[in-house]
Amino acid sequence: MFETIETPRLVLDKDRLAQNSQRFRALADKHNILLRPHLKTAKSVDVAAIALNGRKSAITVSTLKEAAYFAAEGYGDILYAVGITPNKFAHAKAIMDQYKGSLTLLTDNVAVTRAACAFAERERCVFSFLIELNSGENRGGILPESPDLLEIAQIFDACPAIDFKGVLTHGGHSYGTDSRAEIATIAEAERQAVTIAAKRLSALSIASPICSVGSTPTFLLGQSFAGVTEVRAGVYMFFDLAQFSRKICQIEDIALSVLASVIGHARQGPAVIIDGGAFALSKDDSANRFLPDAGYGYVCDPVTMERLEHLSVNEVHQEHGTIHLEDEAWFERLPVGSMVRILPNHACATAANFDNYLVVEKGSIMGEWPRVNRW
Amino acid sequence: MFETIETPRLVLDKDRLAQNSQRFRALADKHNILLRPHLKTAKSVDVAAIALNGRKSAITVSTLKEAAYFAAEGYGDILYAVGITPNKFAHAKAIMDQYKGSLTLLTDNVAVTRAACAFAERERCVFSFLIELNSGENRGGILPESPDLLEIAQIFDACPAIDFKGVLTHGGHSYGTDSRAEIATIAEAERQAVTIAAKRLSALSIASPICSVGSTPTFLLGQSFAGVTEVRAGVYMFFDLAQFSRKICQIEDIALSVLASVIGHARQGPAVIIDGGAFALSKDDSANRFLPDAGYGYVCDPVTMERLEHLSVNEVHQEHGTIHLEDEAWFERLPVGSMVRILPNHACATAANFDNYLVVEKGSIMGEWPRVNRW
Repeated sequence: MFETIETPRLVLDKDRLAQNSQRFRALADKHNILLRPHLKTAKSVDVAAIALNGRKSAITVSTLKEAAYFAAEGYGDILYAVGITPNKFAHAKAIMDQYKGSLTLLTDNVAVTRAACAFAERERCVFSFLIELNSGENRGGILPESPDLLEIAQIFDACPAIDFKGVLTHGGHSYGTDSRAEIATIAEAERQAVTIAAKRLSALSIASPICSVGSTPTFLLGQSFAGVTEVRAGVYMFFDLAQFSRKICQIEDIALSVLASVIGHARQGPAVIIDGGAFALSKDDSANRFLPDAGYGYVCDPVTMERLEHLSVNEVHQEHGTIHLEDEAWFERLPVGSMVRILPNHACATAANFDNYLVVEKGSIMGEWPRVNRW
Repeated sequence: MFETIETPRLVLDKDRLAQNSQRFRALADKHNILLRPHLKTAKSVDVAAIALNGRKSAITVSTLKEAAYFAAEGYGDILYAVGITPNKFAHAKAIMDQYKGSLTLLTDNVAVTRAACAFAERERCVFSFLIELNSGENRGGILPESPDLLEIAQIFDACPAIDFKGVLTHGGHSYGTDSRAEIATIAEAERQAVTIAAKRLSALSIASPICSVGSTPTFLLGQSFAGVTEVRAGVYMFFDLAQFSRKICQIEDIALSVLASVIGHARQGPAVIIDGGAFALSKDDSANRFLPDAGYGYVCDPVTMERLEHLSVNEVHQEHGTIHLEDEAWFERLPVGSMVRILPNHACATAANFDNYLVVEKGSIMGEWPRVNRW
């Protein structure tokens, strides 16, 4: 089916995407909670339409460029879930001015809070804000017990140009374990962070209509979402070897792959060389921690998607991927010019290397979908 | 100077680029050899113009997209230095048809050789070809002593639709050492590979007008280029911590950096969080082998480009970079909203994350230069 396709290409299996999306929507229904999908992995309105079953409801983005793109497509409730800085206020305002949708911003910093209030008052606009909480990842966010929480919320509350919406946390350290029990504990830490913070703010008569948590692993394995209003998750749409390595998905759930051609036989390896290198697959190796043979991806048959025995992409250079061989018989099975599909180590990083998806559905190519990359 | 710039941005120091380019042109003059710059790092006609001092002479590219872009800009001698496969023949022909320049292709495979001859005869075009040799990297290429060398050359020689141009090797394993003596040995292995192969072909009365070698380290440290007609090198234009770690450049030679903003203070780290994460800096960590504190880049003052004591970007997530702190005084020196510039671990990988350069010259912003990414 791919004979005339020039490689490397990013291939998206629409059937698997639809199945993964349906599964996570059902999970949200089960918990009776809003799923606000994170589009940082997909960066595509076509993927978002499937994730949300055609509704342009609440979404999460990782860049203002994504925010502008989804706003232009009619998404009216967008959360930009990376701490904002004053040099991005004008861009955020421009998006809101042009599209009239709701764009919610994030901070964990008193100085940025003051600057946002001053900017919004001066520019006569209204910024919506959440406060970012640290639930144990120790990256973005303040502790729910922090005095800064109250100070930031009070500054926002006193500012007529700010629509204060509540609190958010991301238990990103859920990626650091393959223990389902530990992930469930981290999910509970996320829940505790937002509910403790909301309670402290409530004592000051400041409401938190949004209490946002999430990651794909913690959403899947969290036991209770009491007090949480929404979950964010993104990589579940595609999954990858990193999620498989942590037992979050089955190998058959992975919807993303890179189509590559064999461009050489390294007899001295022995190795097969493909045109899927670091610039196609990325150098992300986060699956390897719990799946040592992941390499830069599993090598699969391009049509059946069955893995080719134990083959992985073991080395990557800019445009070259090297597949180590134990058996030179592979030179016969994979002649130069033949194709393989590589299951990605980390879907977010691999997808970011391409400006569009080649979409396959029921075993046939059905079209191309663009992606909104960069900033 | 960067106050109004939205981050992350890729910054190119034109003065350093010009200095590095001049140094390598002088080295080529000293060896009386053609420098065919590899534009896989720069992917920019503006950078190429400086590298070649305004001449549109011979260049190397890593994708057919780069080839089409440089051909359209009037470059008439382009070498696509990645093994070609039949699914790219039509694209290569289209570039040649449209632009009339010379595009030289590469293979190390008998079957591809036959397919190229058949395609060119059927399509009534002429393909120029080099044969790729393995000089010890064991990635692309056949050994110079290989029987395939003679078979491929004889097939090409007998085909009226092929302009056979000679042999090429890349001692990419020169990146695997920081020993100047070892790099010099690898440079000699490159030279031996092409001269042995050319001699074997000459015995069959097949000329090799091109004997192409190179990488930045082997060009810099090679002792003899007797019998070599040209050298390819690319990262020398920008340099990076990977080259610095191997003593190939000084820290002050590095022309590329990523401008980033401080977006948070992680008191529990303690760490400073910036908006230069994996998608801006890349996850390439190849400098760390010989420079363990390289992390994902050195953190510098945005104007003076002096490193901020021992600060590196120690962790990256998609849009977040984490700078570990030994001293919380950095929270005062780097308030949220302040900027830093990150010297890249590996310039090729970092630059690929951006569609343009913000160019600075003599301490001022002088414009933007586009890049040709993807395939």
